Parts: sequence; C-alpha cells; structure tokens
Amino acid sequence: MIDNHNPILSLDPLFNPRSIAIIGASSNPEKPGGVPIVNLVEKWQGKIYPVNPTHEVIKGLKCYPSIMDIPGSVDLAIISVAADHVYDNLEQCVAKGIKAAIIFSSGFAEVGPEGLALQKKITGLAGRTGMRILGPNCLGLLNTNNNLAASFSSIVDLPPVDPKVLGFVSQSGAFGAAIYSTALAEGVGFNYFISVGNEADLEFADFIEYMVHDPQTLLIGGYLEGAKNGDKLRRVAEEALDNNKPILIMKVGRTSAGSRAAASHTGSLAGSDKIYSAFFKQTGIIRINNYTDLIAFTPLFMSKRLPRGRNTAIIASSGGAGVTITDYCESMGLNVVPLREETRKKIDSVLPSFASSRNPIDLTAALMTEPEIMSVTLKAVCEDPDVDIVLVSLNLQIPSGHPVIGKIVQIYKNTDKFVLFLPIKSAKNLVDEVVVEFQKAALPTNYNTTDAIIALAQLVQFGEALERRKQEKYCIAPRSGPRPIISDLIRPGETLSESGAKAVLERYGIPIARQEVAGTREEAVISARRIGYPVAMKVDSPDIPHKTEAGGIRLNLNSDDEVGRAFADIIENVRKYKPGALINGVAVQEMLPEGTEVIIGVTRDPVFGPTIMFGLGGIFVEVLKDVSFRVAPVSRGDAEDMVREIKGSAVLKGVRGKPPADTKAIVDVILKVSDMVTDYRDSIEELDINPLIVYPRGVKAADAMLVARK
Amino acid sequence: MIDNHNPILSLDPLFNPRSIAIIGASSNPEKPGGVPIVNLVEKWQGKIYPVNPTHEVIKGLKCYPSIMDIPGSVDLAIISVAADHVYDNLEQCVAKGIKAAIIFSSGFAEVGPEGLALQKKITGLAGRTGMRILGPNCLGLLNTNNNLAASFSSIVDLPPVDPKVLGFVSQSGAFGAAIYSTALAEGVGFNYFISVGNEADLEFADFIEYMVHDPQTLLIGGYLEGAKNGDKLRRVAEEALDNNKPILIMKVGRTSAGSRAAASHTGSLAGSDKIYSAFFKQTGIIRINNYTDLIAFTPLFMSKRLPRGRNTAIIASSGGAGVTITDYCESMGLNVVPLREETRKKIDSVLPSFASSRNPIDLTAALMTEPEIMSVTLKAVCEDPDVDIVLVSLNLQIPSGHPVIGKIVQIYKNTDKFVLFLPIKSAKNLVDEVVVEFQKAALPTNYNTTDAIIALAQLVQFGEALERRKQEKYCIAPRSGPRPIISDLIRPGETLSESGAKAVLERYGIPIARQEVAGTREEAVISARRIGYPVAMKVDSPDIPHKTEAGGIRLNLNSDDEVGRAFADIIENVRKYKPGALINGVAVQEMLPEGTEVIIGVTRDPVFGPTIMFGLGGIFVEVLKDVSFRVAPVSRGDAEDMVREIKGSAVLKGVRGKPPADTKAIVDVILKVSDMVTDYRDSIEELDINPLIVYPRGVKAADAMLVARK
Repeated sequence: MIDNHNPILSLDPLFNPRSIAIIGASSNPEKPGGVPIVNLVEKWQGKIYPVNPTHEVIKGLKCYPSIMDIPGSVDLAIISVAADHVYDNLEQCVAKGIKAAIIFSSGFAEVGPEGLALQKKITGLAGRTGMRILGPNCLGLLNTNNNLAASFSSIVDLPPVDPKVLGFVSQSGAFGAAIYSTALAEGVGFNYFISVGNEADLEFADFIEYMVHDPQTLLIGGYLEGAKNGDKLRRVAEEALDNNKPILIMKVGRTSAGSRAAASHTGSLAGSDKIYSAFFKQTGIIRINNYTDLIAFTPLFMSKRLPRGRNTAIIASSGGAGVTITDYCESMGLNVVPLREETRKKIDSVLPSFASSRNPIDLTAALMTEPEIMSVTLKAVCEDPDVDIVLVSLNLQIPSGHPVIGKIVQIYKNTDKFVLFLPIKSAKNLVDEVVVEFQKAALPTNYNTTDAIIALAQLVQFGEALERRKQEKYCIAPRSGPRPIISDLIRPGETLSESGAKAVLERYGIPIARQEVAGTREEAVISARRIGYPVAMKVDSPDIPHKTEAGGIRLNLNSDDEVGRAFADIIENVRKYKPGALINGVAVQEMLPEGTEVIIGVTRDPVFGPTIMFGLGGIFVEVLKDVSFRVAPVSRGDAEDMVREIKGSAVLKGVRGKPPADTKAIVDVILKVSDMVTDYRDSIEELDINPLIVYPRGVKAADAMLVARK
Repeated sequence: MIDNHNPILSLDPLFNPRSIAIIGASSNPEKPGGVPIVNLVEKWQGKIYPVNPTHEVIKGLKCYPSIMDIPGSVDLAIISVAADHVYDNLEQCVAKGIKAAIIFSSGFAEVGPEGLALQKKITGLAGRTGMRILGPNCLGLLNTNNNLAASFSSIVDLPPVDPKVLGFVSQSGAFGAAIYSTALAEGVGFNYFISVGNEADLEFADFIEYMVHDPQTLLIGGYLEGAKNGDKLRRVAEEALDNNKPILIMKVGRTSAGSRAAASHTGSLAGSDKIYSAFFKQTGIIRINNYTDLIAFTPLFMSKRLPRGRNTAIIASSGGAGVTITDYCESMGLNVVPLREETRKKIDSVLPSFASSRNPIDLTAALMTEPEIMSVTLKAVCEDPDVDIVLVSLNLQIPSGHPVIGKIVQIYKNTDKFVLFLPIKSAKNLVDEVVVEFQKAALPTNYNTTDAIIALAQLVQFGEALERRKQEKYCIAPRSGPRPIISDLIRPGETLSESGAKAVLERYGIPIARQEVAGTREEAVISARRIGYPVAMKVDSPDIPHKTEAGGIRLNLNSDDEVGRAFADIIENVRKYKPGALINGVAVQEMLPEGTEVIIGVTRDPVFGPTIMFGLGGIFVEVLKDVSFRVAPVSRGDAEDMVREIKGSAVLKGVRGKPPADTKAIVDVILKVSDMVTDYRDSIEELDINPLIVYPRGVKAADAMLVARK
C-alpha cells in the first residue's frame, strides 16, 4: 500500500509519472480525451497508452481496449469517460496497480445528490486503496518542468516562461486557467498549475503541501472558494514559512456566507470571511484581492531581497509623482519617514536650491540636464540607516548608454535595501530603454505603480510573518499542568446557566466574580454575608438568557433585608416571565466595581473549528462590530495582536481620565480560553464571557454563557 | 478692458488664438522656446511670430527683435525667457494689446521669497490689466480641436485620439503629462490638456469652468494638489452638474497635511484631506485614487447610459468569475440582488440542471456548446425590473460571425439597463474577436475587471449626484427671517466663555440648557430657585477651558444650601488652579436628564472656509474619530447625510433599550450653525457644541465654546 500521508511521495505519480493511460481517449484533438494525447505526444517524454475499445490507433499510438490490456506498468491514469463509468474504471486502475488518477469527467457533487453519491464512492476507493485522485470535474494539471500537460484546458498550448518558480492551485477551473494565461503573458513563470475540481480525494491544501516540499517551487499561489480542512492548511502554511516560501491566496466569497444564526454574540458576529482573514493573518498566508497582486509580487520576490521594515524613502522627478506615491504607500501601511540630517545634506549638495530633499524627494526637472542627481540621491538614501525601502519614480530621459545607469546598477548591488524602480511612461518613451538596461541587471522595476506598491506591502507582510515565526511568543505554548476536567459540568447540546458557565471558566483559572447560587431566601442572605455587602443578585437558569428583560437582576443590595426581598422579587418576576423555566436558584454575586467592559467569546467554524473573538463591550460590539478573531489554539503573540487590532483599542490605554486597563490579564484569559477549547474541541459549541471587566490590575468575568456541542 | 469674469470669453484667446507670439523663441527644436514653433508651424493654422533679438529667421518664419515690432495684432503670447525678464515682456504684451499669455519660465514662487515677489507682480498686472495668464512654471496647454500645442512638453508630438471629449487640468506638469500620454495610449480622447503651473492668475478651477461651458468637452478630469479658492470650485462643480458633465479629480496629499493645532475638538479632528473628501461628496465631484479610474470611466460615460441604481446582476461562465465579480461589486457598494422568480424561470429553461440561475448566474461550461444560453440569460436579466446594472463576464469561445453576437447586440440596443461586458482572456483568445464585434456596435467592454467596476461605481455616483442636484432638500435654503445680530457678543480673537458661546447659540435659536451666571453666593441661590432644582454649577471663564480639571463643576445640587456651598468651593478651586484667571461668575444650569451625547462643531479651513463637523460624543469622537464634515453652507440633505454617514449612526436609532434620538432636531441645529457661520463667515474661527444632548424629542446644548477670528 502506498503511503497516503507523505505529500511528496504519494503525489509524485501525478506530477512525475513515467507512463500515462488516457481512459476515454479520443481521436478528436479538441475533446477532453483528445487534448492531452496530442500534447503529450508532441512535448512529453514517457509512455502514453490511449484506452478506448472503439479505436485501434490514436495519434500514431496503439489504442488499448481496456486498462488491463496495457502491456507495461502505468503510473498515472487520466479518466475522461461518462460519470457513471468512472468508478469501474478506477477499480480497474487499482487492479492494474496504477497509483494516481486525474478525473476530468463532470456529473458528480456539482449536479446534485446522485452525483454526490457517485463521488462518495470515489472518495471511499481512494481512502481504501491509497490511490491518489485529482478531481473529478477538474481541468487537470500542468508540470512545466517536464512538459507534462495532463489537462484538456486550452492553456496546455501556451509556452512556459522562465524562470519557472510559481506553483498555482485553483478551485475554479475556467477562472484559474484565465489567471494562468494572463499571468503567463505578463511574464510570470509557473512550474505547476492544478485545477482541483470537486476534491473527492486530494484537496487544495494537499497540493500546497506538495509544493512547499518541492525544491522547484519558490512561491505558491492559489484561488480558493472554501477550504476543506482548516487544520491541514494551517500546518502547511507553517511549513511554508519554515521553507521561506510565501503563499498568496485569492480567497473569494467575501460577501456570500454572511453571519449565521447563533445563540452567542460571538457566533452572530463571526462571518466566514472574517475568520478566513484572521486565519490568514495568523498563519502568514498573504491574502490577495486580485490575481494582479500575484503578477506584481512574483518578480519582487524573485529579486531575492526582503525589506527589513516599513520605512520608505521616495525619490521622484516630479512633485506630483512623489506625493502620489506617498499616498499609495501610506494607504498600504508603508511609512514615508523623515530622512536623517546627513542624508539630506548629501542630497542638497547636488539638488537645485528650490528642489526638496525632504521625503518624498523631488529632484525636479533638473534631472533632465543632470542625470547624476539621481545616482547621488539614491546612494545617499540607501546609506540612511532609518530607511528600509527606496522607491524611485523613474523618469530618466537619457540614452541607454549613459554612465549614470551603470552607477545606479552599482549602487543597487552594493546596498541591501529594498529598491524598486517605478518607471513613468512618457511620450518619447526614452525611459523604456533605461528600463531594459535595469532589467538586464535584475533591478526590480514595474510600470504599474499601484500594483507594485500593493505587492511591496505584501512582501513586507511576508517578511514580518517569517520574523513572527521565529519569535517564541508566536509559538503555541505547551500546556502547563494537567488538563482540567470539565466533563462533569457540560452535557452535549446543553446551554449552561451563568453559574454553570462560570464554573467551567473557574476550572481553567479564569477569574470570575465571586458568587454562590442560593435556593432559598435564607441561603441568599447567608451567601450575601459570606461574600460581603454590597452584592448583586441574578436568576440562575439555562432557560433565561436575557435576565434583565425577565426582571431577574437586582444590583447594589446593601442589607440582609434587601437581599431577602430581592430573592422573592426575582423568583416572582421570572416565574411570570417564563412559566415552567428551570430555575437553579438565584446567584448572589459580589458587586463588581466599575472597569472597562470587554467580551471574549468562542464560536465553532465549520472549516477552522473553535475560533476566539475579542472586542470591547457594549456599543463597540453591538453597533460598531469592532472585534478581532483568531482560530484556536492561539499563541500569546496572536492574543496580543487580537487586543491591539480592534479600532477602539485606545480605550484600553485609558481615556477620559481612566487609568490603563490590564491588557496582559486580558491576554491571559484569551490563552486560557484557547486551552479550554483546544482541550474540549468537540465539546464546546459557543462561549461568551460578556462582560469581562478589566481593571488596572486584573480582570473578572461578570457574566458568561456556554453552549455545549450536540 | 477685457471681461475678466466671463470664463469663456476671457479664456478664449488661450484656447482659440488667431495669432501667437513666442517670446524667447529658440531655433533649437528641443528647447522650450523652440518646441512650440516647430509644432505650430507643422500643424496649426494661424499667424506665428517668433520674438528674439538675436535671430532673423526661425523655422522659415521672420523673427522679430521685440513684441512691439510685430506688424499685426497678436491674441496670445507664449513667454519663455529668464524669470527676471518676464514682467517687462508682459508689460510690452499689454502695450501691444495682447489678451492672454502663457509663461513657461520657472524661477517664481517655487524657488523662494524672491521668486514669490516676482510672481506677485505678475498677479498684480493680471488684475490691473485684465490680461489672462497661464503659469508661470507650467508646461502650457493643448487644444486638440484646432491642433494648438502651446506647450513644450514632449506630449505635443502625440497624435490625438477620437472622439475628443475629455478636458484635463493638472497642477503637476510632468506627472500630468505622464497621465495624458498613458491615457491617450489607452484610447482616451482628450480635447484639452492644461498644466496650470504656479497659478499666478488663472487657477485650476478657472479651466474647469471654461470646460464646463465648452460644448466640445463632455467630461473633465483633474490632478489636484490643493485648490486655491474653494468657493469657486464649488460653484463650478454645481454648474458642471447642471450641464451633465462629470468632474473626476485625483486629489493627492492625503497624508501630508495632517491635523493642526486647534483649541476645539472640531479643529483637531479636521485634517485637510477629510475636508476635501467631504467637499467632493457635497459637490458631486468624483474623487479618483488613480488616473486609471479616468481611463476606465471615459468609455463607460461615452456609452451615454447612466445606471438607474446600484442593483447589479452578474452573468458569468464560471463560478469563480461570478463570485470574484460579486466581491468586487459589493466592495464598491454595488448590490448583487436576488433575481425575480420569473427571471430565474426564463434562465432555468435554457441552463443545464446543475447550473445556477441565482445571482451571480453561473452559465457553466454548457456555454461552450450552446452559446445561445448567453443571449437568453442576458435578455431575461435585462427584463428584470429589480436590476439596474448587468455585468457579463465574457468567455464566449465562438467564431466572430456567430449569430448569437447579433442577438446580444440587439438585446443591448433594446434595453435601457446599463450593460457592461468583462471579457476574460483565454489561451486561444477567441474572445478577442467577439470583443471586436461588440466594440464595433458600441457595447461597453473592458478587459480589466477591477478598473471597470471602480469606474462603474463612479458612474453610479455621478448619476446620484445629478439626482441630488434636482432635489429641493439639497438646495441651500434661503435665510428665513432676518440675520441675527451677534456682533455685540464676540470680539476679534477672543475665546468666549461657556455662557458667552451659549448666548450666541441662543440668538440663532439653538436650544441651550437654561442657565444664569451668578456673581455671588446669594445670586446663585436665587438663580437656582428660578431654574428649579436639581441644578448643575460650572465656573464661567474664558480662561478655563477644562472646567472639570480645575474643580470648576458641581452636579446634581438639590438645595439652597448645596448651591451656596458649591459656589464657594468652585471659586476657591478655580482661584487655586489658575490665579489671575478672569472669572465672570458661576453658571447655574438646569440639570439635564440623560440622553445621547453628540458634538457639532465648526473649524475654518484655509481653502473652504467654515466647515461643519458632526459626531457622537465621548469615546466615539475621542478614540474612534468617527465624525463627518461638510463645508458651509450646508443643505438639509447634506446635514442628513452628515448624521447618517458616521459609523456609529445606529446609536441614534436607539440601542440597549434606549428610544431613538431626535435626528431631525440634530439636523436643525446643523442648519442653524450653518446659517451662523455663513452670516459671520469672517468672525468665527472655531465652535464646539459639546455635548449637544439629544432626546427622543428635541435637543439641548449642555456646553459650548467659541473662538472668534482675529
């Protein structure tokens, strides 16, 4: 049996077969069963076996009536027969010892329940036999390293571009092919293209994993509508960082999923798209909005330099270009920083008096007559220790042999700063000749300023993800101490009362407001004395989620008498509000002093599992929906990012005379919640700690609710 | 004397001269004084008079030693001499009766104080004589209608593109020229290009005005760093809407100005860029981020259709393209709406069972074999009354003569819906032939999906601006009643105390918390009785802006005794806090019940004058900076937009059990503030009504501050 779990070995027959059978081979070079034969015969080195009982010969090759008739061994089967014949053919492939198959045929999950049933049989066969299957309902794959075009898409006819560095996986066939051909035309060198189709066996993340471990692939792109397995994608993303390979994913469907019906605040605020965005941040996957980002990113990445930071200097030959580029940079989070005094002095020594050596640097039309201004300025800026990135709006109107070009190339080679040239089209196109010289010397240049700056910001993001991966605080900390037992507190499908939910929190060491549930008026008074006045009282019932509405809350009670009366009132109100509700009693709780209210919650995402949310309480969550998410488990660094990332985070620093809130204590609660939902991944459906009250030192959960999984 | 105020007549000699003198004429065809001669001689019909004492003949033309030596009359002078000779030449031009001049020469305001002095002389001459002047320090202008190239930029050599419809004004010469040549290469037909240089006389808005009234110009583009005169630009923008002409402006410098030092909240929150954005919204000018927007917008606008609304249907041949386009649309504020039942039935009748007739409609690969699916679907969607815009992701792999093309063209011609075709590049480029057929029939198509959808959203915005312009509530209402007198209350440069500021508000009918300023303990008690308990007390002093800090506030006072003690405490605290502060007394104020706190303020923008701000109070303003601006005067519609536009506006609808706030009363206060700062435009520097407390019915200003202009 084949090792189904080694991504390289088990996928290798798909990418590097020595022999291929085309089942449903066609003599029509336009048909799915014909396209690969034509292409493989012309370009590929290896044995090709057409299989079709109605033909003798196709494209000069002997055609076999069935798979079993093929004399030699076969590594890969391409299947292009009607959906209801696919399974039988796969069984024959297994019998023949074929290790991998690509199924072009459609008519499976995409057409409805019957197709889905057929597809499930394929999934079953793959699991049972270890055969690796791409598709069904896919365009197949290309490996340009060995000229393998196991696809019927018209992109098989496009000549590849060197250097072949980008592997691309797509969940859309037609759109993926359009991205491939557009990017190829723009000079992007692909080594792999895979259309994953219905993912009956192999999925999107499997191909990314293959490419992460494939030395030919230097960066990875993907078009994604929805991941099947969040855990696998997370693991693969981490491996990619460990291999210094960026993954850029165009994830679509931002607006499709929307928020779902949920008992908790957290659940109702978690749209699928927000969780994807959080997941990408957390794993260092670069989310792109458009495939043009991939086109601009590839050459920047291939310059083999990474910006050390976000501090950017801009050199422009017109004030307009300088300020425009400044706007783009700032909108992408790149900082256009002040230059050092000594840098400005060097620049001022060559600039005319009215030109500006302030960042963005305006060389003015003086550049026309004195091109050396450019090289002096570039050198000065590259030597400024405060600068990480240099953007040069290129408008050099000089002949291609001019000595300043050599100087610029030399400065580029002698600096480790990230330098990017942004040529400006002019009527006479003199700059084009300069650009050709720069490109020969491998200086990064891009005519499309906006695309280039987006890609640059994404490259910075990649560098930061690599950096984070090295930091201890971004590693998931191993559990300290034994895993707390909470199974006695939660029953499948149950919504816990406040006291039940708080008991769970307490087991995980999350500070809760001190409280006792009283069954009688007398017990309430005893509890109140034990806790100390003043106290609050709240009905404790899994059936009453909105306690205020039900008249189930009394605050600031100062005496035995008040507590006694409050007990009676609450019970009476709640019985009226919801006759028959299960009432555990009335919780007597310490009256918490004022602090900053935040919410920490958990929702289960169908792809990513337990996902943690953080936000400020009240209007911030309800009106502004100003919350952050991360998929569990989270690292300390992730938890800190969650707290920092909300728009209202300044509130935690102390506003309107309030002292700063203890954000470290918030982070600790997030980490404890992360432990909890990781330990009990299959037991917790939703959790809201709302509010968690944050003080200058410490926090306390004032209220909580928890829904157990069915 | 020429009519300096008629934009068409006074600028006409610049665009349509019959004769031109080139002062500082050069025989070198590369120099600023040489380029226009070469070009005018070759292409332009009219008299050309080179002026240069050191030449006899240039380019076969007689060269004159001075302007006065020219025999005939001259309409336009192009001046390309050293800066310190420009003024003398202008005086000679005036003497010769020349009505307009273009000054190429640099060395004016851009080089420092001496240059600025020279430039001011030019401004003075223009004002005195009525001569209209473009520049100095500019590239000049082009009028492609009559082949006039009064410029030394290399763009003069580029052949124009038909139809010539776009007028373009730029505050950057070099960058403007780059935009011109790039857009021209993309097929945009310009009729005018103007580089405005230092704007010593004619400014950016003057040229827009010329083009608004010029029948050859159908739309107007601009590159703007900073307007000189906000009022003029506002008036011109309104005239443009009245002439159905869109103005698209690329305004740069988003990050440059930042916020300024200001006494008021409003002042510190008002960055120049935010005010520009508000101004553009208010006036219907379309703010573009990139000149690529202009390139995509022009052909859409030239289709001569305007989308009726934002409801969009998407027809795609792959699920991937459909969902991607949906994301782009939603991010640009276009709604991808459900289709009517009867529409879906029509589509389902031709689609395969597994294809989706839900919006976005996925035609699937069935389109390959049955291209008619496209025309049937397009027709059905165009007939759906709920749809305003139809986007067709075009992947028709059919020969150019196929009958379905004619059908699609016919459907387009028979509908008034806005239909936009977005071809997808494919390896075989079959779609290109179809696109050529569509373009012949004037069907809007764009290969760049993202650019096209941005431009489409901008076209929708233009339609909405036209619509607004017709609505009465967006007209500035004429003053009802006499202008209130407030001059007795404010002295230039003075910061008013709370009671002073409130007195101003009261004159304008803005409801304020009832209050009296008491000079003694006894007066305070009398006031408190008159107002009615409970009361609040606050020190009234122009020198104490932060009353709480100074111990100058007491709330919820319920008796004569409490009021008396509070008076003494406040006076004592304030004297300690700031010895020597001018104290008017202590204001006794009705204790306002709780409500929703908002802030309404005014700041003076150097370009746009008094600008009004609205926001929610407290953390919303201080932490989230969630505020909206409009330039005064504002219409009722503008004021309503201000209230609606803030992110936290849902708070006003009532959250957490609160009733909805009286937004109409907020709008009334904004309109009264607008009246006030329009009446006293030159007297008021800053105003904060903070907080204005909003109730379910009515509002009350609880506190206010006002700074008078120096």
